[in-house]
Amino acid sequence: MSDQQTYRRIVLASRPADAVTPDNFRLETVPVPTLADGQVLVRNHFLSLDPYMRGRMSESKSYANPQPLGEVMIGGTVGEVVESRNPKFKAGDSVVAMFGWQEMGVSDGSGMQKVDTTHIPLSAYLGSVGMPGVTAWYGLNRIIEPKAGETIVVSAASGAVGSVVGQLAKKAGCRVVGVAGGKDKCDYVVNELGFDACVDYKAAADAKALYAAVKAVTPDGIDGYFENVGGDILDVVLARLNAFGRIALCGLIAGYDGQDLPLKNPRAILVSRAKIQGFIVSEHMDVWPQALKELGGMVAQRQLKFRESVAEGLASAPEAFMGLLKGKNFGKQLVKLV
Amino acid sequence: MSDQQTYRRIVLASRPADAVTPDNFRLETVPVPTLADGQVLVRNHFLSLDPYMRGRMSESKSYANPQPLGEVMIGGTVGEVVESRNPKFKAGDSVVAMFGWQEMGVSDGSGMQKVDTTHIPLSAYLGSVGMPGVTAWYGLNRIIEPKAGETIVVSAASGAVGSVVGQLAKKAGCRVVGVAGGKDKCDYVVNELGFDACVDYKAAADAKALYAAVKAVTPDGIDGYFENVGGDILDVVLARLNAFGRIALCGLIAGYDGQDLPLKNPRAILVSRAKIQGFIVSEHMDVWPQALKELGGMVAQRQLKFRESVAEGLASAPEAFMGLLKGKNFGKQLVKLV
Repeated sequence: MSDQQTYRRIVLASRPADAVTPDNFRLETVPVPTLADGQVLVRNHFLSLDPYMRGRMSESKSYANPQPLGEVMIGGTVGEVVESRNPKFKAGDSVVAMFGWQEMGVSDGSGMQKVDTTHIPLSAYLGSVGMPGVTAWYGLNRIIEPKAGETIVVSAASGAVGSVVGQLAKKAGCRVVGVAGGKDKCDYVVNELGFDACVDYKAAADAKALYAAVKAVTPDGIDGYFENVGGDILDVVLARLNAFGRIALCGLIAGYDGQDLPLKNPRAILVSRAKIQGFIVSEHMDVWPQALKELGGMVAQRQLKFRESVAEGLASAPEAFMGLLKGKNFGKQLVKLV
Repeated sequence: MSDQQTYRRIVLASRPADAVTPDNFRLETVPVPTLADGQVLVRNHFLSLDPYMRGRMSESKSYANPQPLGEVMIGGTVGEVVESRNPKFKAGDSVVAMFGWQEMGVSDGSGMQKVDTTHIPLSAYLGSVGMPGVTAWYGLNRIIEPKAGETIVVSAASGAVGSVVGQLAKKAGCRVVGVAGGKDKCDYVVNELGFDACVDYKAAADAKALYAAVKAVTPDGIDGYFENVGGDILDVVLARLNAFGRIALCGLIAGYDGQDLPLKNPRAILVSRAKIQGFIVSEHMDVWPQALKELGGMVAQRQLKFRESVAEGLASAPEAFMGLLKGKNFGKQLVKLV
């Protein structure tokens, strides 16, 4: 018997029939590999949990290939180089990568970025200064293109993406209205993040009540909408949309489990001469440097606030992920691995 | 009694409860006015009937103010100056204007354009070389932005707008598929207009059959869609849409009478990273000169074919309009007034 070390990883065991269940995942313990020349071994400190992962778990047509069964679940990670046989990295380097749901990762250096944690916490590179932040930046600046004085609405407003959308829109001089689930999240969005108002969709008995609640805080209508959720709220926003309104379609969590998610009134798109555009931030790599520079600067100067929900240990990832899909997280959902 | 001459006009008598009925209109005979200094009297030869008029007849929120009750129905016209007290116009000039549903019109010259009928028939200024043509041009060139080799689909393909969309897209090197109601229209679209294929939506028993029919003629998926109709076909196209597909939303005739017109699967917008954009051509006056020059040149050189349905006499306008909303017309719907 050798004294070879091991680490843990989570693979996709089966595809969800509708809602994700714990037995869709399998926790495995595997040996730490010996590095080949040019390779780097990383200990992952944080795993990012994101709604897009739900899409990858299914086989239906989507914008990305499905996650293969039996392989490590996809996911963004931040961690520290523990051993390097690659001249571009050395032990102790902080790196962001896509090692997935596992405690360690091996790479030839591709797909890894060294990051500076002097002024920015490591975990922020999975949130405001990472994919969620760039998602917010792209959808807001390249699709919604907000102008000072306009009213911008964002759903999942306390989340990793929505919180950045709203704060960037405030910086652009807009009236910003969030939509979130529950009083605590709404209070946070207004009092901590500085949105002008927040609608608690859970407090609305039906679509009509939701419309009334949105109308009350958008007296001048809505010019831009950043959609993370889908369902009734999209129809409500369309009904309040001003001429030439823009909707960035980033996610539709409400329908991730295959539910029908009809848009009741597409006529509103025509009436408002609106633009609705879906996007995936990974297809717009050209904006990442500019976006990350801006977002990193704001975080370092405490101008961009964020909140994290941290689950402890890799084994907690499935439950944390299922909670994320139900909106149980509050802010960016992470798993602390080590 | 004077021997003052009269002309006839049609005013909006009442707003439709759902479908338009003949008693929503009232035919009136009124005296031909005496011109003031600077005014022009025009005898209208053709009235254009267009789907947008249905929206104006209702009071519900739309992109334009409703048509006032008791006033002449809005509409584009072409005609001939019969008397002028305005130095910019003289008797015999051919003009295009918005005199509405009436046999004569008086103007101070504003809103009137002299047109050249040497190479272009007068009626074409209400169709391919008028508002419908520019609508096609704008939606195709500014929203869909077709590239050679792409597949472009257009609904109401034999109509005033759709026929131009398809022929412009062919000219741009695209594979062009029409959607139209009935074998005659589909034959015309393929054999006369030169589309690559046409789907007869009336021959499809349900949405599934419609999907199969569209799929059969779009083997490489769909890159651009020009929407004039709405309903099932929009969902079908979304399900066939390639990555970065573009949809120009020009009209939704299917829901003009207030029917629900839900979009069953807005998720497809996200999956395809699609853009859906509504537009009204009258808000893009900057493109009219360029579009009309191109369209006029094509018509004059017989490179742009079109077909007209001509109703005889002002009194036939209501019935022709109701037929238009049901797709009974074949090509551009006109009313010959004199």
